[in-house]
Amino acid sequence: MRFYDIIDRKKNKFELTREEIDFFVKSVTDGSAPDYQISALLMAIVLNGMTEKETFYLTSAMTESGEIMKKGNIRGICVDKHSTGGVSDSTTLVVVPVVCSAGLKFAKLSGRGLGHTGGTLDKLESFTGFNVNLSAEEFENTVNTVGAAISGQTENIDPADKKLYALRDVTATVDSIPLIASSIMSKKLASFADIIVLDVKYGSGAFMKKEADAEKLAEAMVDIGKRAGRKTAAVITSMEQPLGTDIGCNAEAAGAVRILKGEKNDLYEVSKILAVEILTLSGIEKDTAYKMFDNIITSGQALKKLKEIVSAQGGDVSLIDNPENFERGKFFCEAVAEKNGYLYSFDAEKIGLANVALGGGRKRKGDAVIHSCGINMKIRTGEKVEKGQAVAVLFSPDKDKLREGTDIFSKSYVIKDIKPEIPKLIYKIIE
Amino acid sequence: MRFYDIIDRKKNKFELTREEIDFFVKSVTDGSAPDYQISALLMAIVLNGMTEKETFYLTSAMTESGEIMKKGNIRGICVDKHSTGGVSDSTTLVVVPVVCSAGLKFAKLSGRGLGHTGGTLDKLESFTGFNVNLSAEEFENTVNTVGAAISGQTENIDPADKKLYALRDVTATVDSIPLIASSIMSKKLASFADIIVLDVKYGSGAFMKKEADAEKLAEAMVDIGKRAGRKTAAVITSMEQPLGTDIGCNAEAAGAVRILKGEKNDLYEVSKILAVEILTLSGIEKDTAYKMFDNIITSGQALKKLKEIVSAQGGDVSLIDNPENFERGKFFCEAVAEKNGYLYSFDAEKIGLANVALGGGRKRKGDAVIHSCGINMKIRTGEKVEKGQAVAVLFSPDKDKLREGTDIFSKSYVIKDIKPEIPKLIYKIIE
Repeated sequence: MRFYDIIDRKKNKFELTREEIDFFVKSVTDGSAPDYQISALLMAIVLNGMTEKETFYLTSAMTESGEIMKKGNIRGICVDKHSTGGVSDSTTLVVVPVVCSAGLKFAKLSGRGLGHTGGTLDKLESFTGFNVNLSAEEFENTVNTVGAAISGQTENIDPADKKLYALRDVTATVDSIPLIASSIMSKKLASFADIIVLDVKYGSGAFMKKEADAEKLAEAMVDIGKRAGRKTAAVITSMEQPLGTDIGCNAEAAGAVRILKGEKNDLYEVSKILAVEILTLSGIEKDTAYKMFDNIITSGQALKKLKEIVSAQGGDVSLIDNPENFERGKFFCEAVAEKNGYLYSFDAEKIGLANVALGGGRKRKGDAVIHSCGINMKIRTGEKVEKGQAVAVLFSPDKDKLREGTDIFSKSYVIKDIKPEIPKLIYKIIE
Repeated sequence: MRFYDIIDRKKNKFELTREEIDFFVKSVTDGSAPDYQISALLMAIVLNGMTEKETFYLTSAMTESGEIMKKGNIRGICVDKHSTGGVSDSTTLVVVPVVCSAGLKFAKLSGRGLGHTGGTLDKLESFTGFNVNLSAEEFENTVNTVGAAISGQTENIDPADKKLYALRDVTATVDSIPLIASSIMSKKLASFADIIVLDVKYGSGAFMKKEADAEKLAEAMVDIGKRAGRKTAAVITSMEQPLGTDIGCNAEAAGAVRILKGEKNDLYEVSKILAVEILTLSGIEKDTAYKMFDNIITSGQALKKLKEIVSAQGGDVSLIDNPENFERGKFFCEAVAEKNGYLYSFDAEKIGLANVALGGGRKRKGDAVIHSCGINMKIRTGEKVEKGQAVAVLFSPDKDKLREGTDIFSKSYVIKDIKPEIPKLIYKIIE
């Protein structure tokens, strides 16, 4: 088999065979294919697409390019959830204690990606003392006793994806549904989760700007999960504005705790639909699942479960009792409405960039994240504002960063005389 | 400007600007663009195409990437002709003496490409003593006195094409009309020819297997030539079987001489149409041009001109008087019809490969070509044959090569009971 012929066949719109795709991924992983051949094939895939079958073969081959997690001594139905990324998106901190309260298991090895607001590991570290470096044995024991464990990921997962992504990033071959879907799902399939629920974001703060593209991506990923024998569903949700009221590691941890204590907002709604999908895939009737979600929260079970999870990994549980004690950068600044009107729209990506400027995100791998900086949103899309009214409060322990972040934030919203159409929070569910 | 953005724009089907294309070619030539970005862009061009304007900009930028020939002291209307390559294609040896007899100039710097039968330089060297290494001064003087000079090319012409072609060859990005057209025409435009006539081949022995593809390529090249201010035309001709009766350097030189002495066959017909196009572009009425071609040959003017050209560069003109004296490999072998019927079709590419096996072509740059080996075709497509009748005679100074060549040749033709449709020799003229 020659790499050249695989490029030629994809260029001529033939469906690649499993053997061809295995050869492609193997040649990428072992370095035998030169970058210029790989990038020519990637461009041919971007422009000529891939069938569902090809996409699944690609995903499987990528998964098999690296280490695959074993369930080992972990008992019960294991769950994974994934978000394609957004601002103020801390649903994991809400969903995990709820579904673990219902008896499911959440065993997650997680990386620290680049992003506007830090990842789940960073937000968990907001519970001072939380240890994300568990040994294999500690990890298994924690899952079996409290229901959930979240630990740092080995570097050996999915090396094909690392290589392909680096090349896609510099050859304008990122925006392809089969390539995005296989990149995400190949890492999901390297874990042993029985149930995978995906939160696919659309809108100004998401990678997919349009609902239709998010839907295609969601369908492709659900198809891959099902072909791999996993129970998989996706929810397409709006990222036209920050999901919750809080942005930044400590602020989002506090925000999630408040949801578990009864606060209701869009973060609550999206957490609920994700948890309901997980519970449904575990065999519970959907109507029952909806009721369970609320019962588990109002009864205090979920809050108790979060304490168990945080405590098991050495985090400070007193912050759950008193979320106002999460450290908060001492300098703050209001972003205000420049005129009377309606908050017409946000550019959620710009808000994410403002948070990075405050110190709350990573520009490069290995960068430190400041946990105490962030943004507290005061107004949501469609609400009336008066001139001078605060749209948000930004805070940081660093005065210069605060100024920089506020400058960016101030360009992230538009106020108009007319009321806007409110973007649909939950656009669609793909099961 | 970033190379990445140029890839992204071509991927998204935008028309690239002259500045973008200049940047692309400059980055290729000076080595600043990595191969993986170039190959991604090449694949995007293959799949999304290029407008005529983009193709012209690409061609111009490639031409300007290297040395450009200056007309210097050469006087008169200068002509260039180019064939996309075929077997037994020695039209240059016929066309040049004819158009020079009509007062036009032919000043050609030529490379020695890879190919099945050697190039024009090799065939000229069949006139023993012919010197293809003229100084600039000798070159100019020869053109001004006898009307034509052909000399070896500098290595500094069109370096962008060399780099791009090497990459296209290994990334399945060769078969693209804009890329093929710009590759050919960028080298043509590096000369100062006022008139460019292109012989675009289609069929089993040509790069373009189908008439329609050859037509698209011809149209693209003529468009480029015109945009560059050159008088340009193309003739689309059949390469379903060897053009003349002779294959191999010495044999083709002899075959061309025989045309100038009055022999008529397909080589004569294609030479005639090419010469007529050149004469027409120089301002002569087409009807007159047809008559001129025959007059120049029957009057012996063309033969005399060939002697002058060969003599001016030190070649043995006695071979023109006695073409039977061209050296011929002493071993020979007949390929015969295995049954009665009609010669239904040839695979002209296979015949070319048979000639390479005999020793008459180059596999690698720098290979030596054996001038005395070759093939003499005895039958043309559509003719009746009897079992045992010779289809061709192959000859070589090397017995092993002769056997190898004959083996390949014997698989190059099909005999059937039914008469085939004869492929159209001159499919179309693009002016």
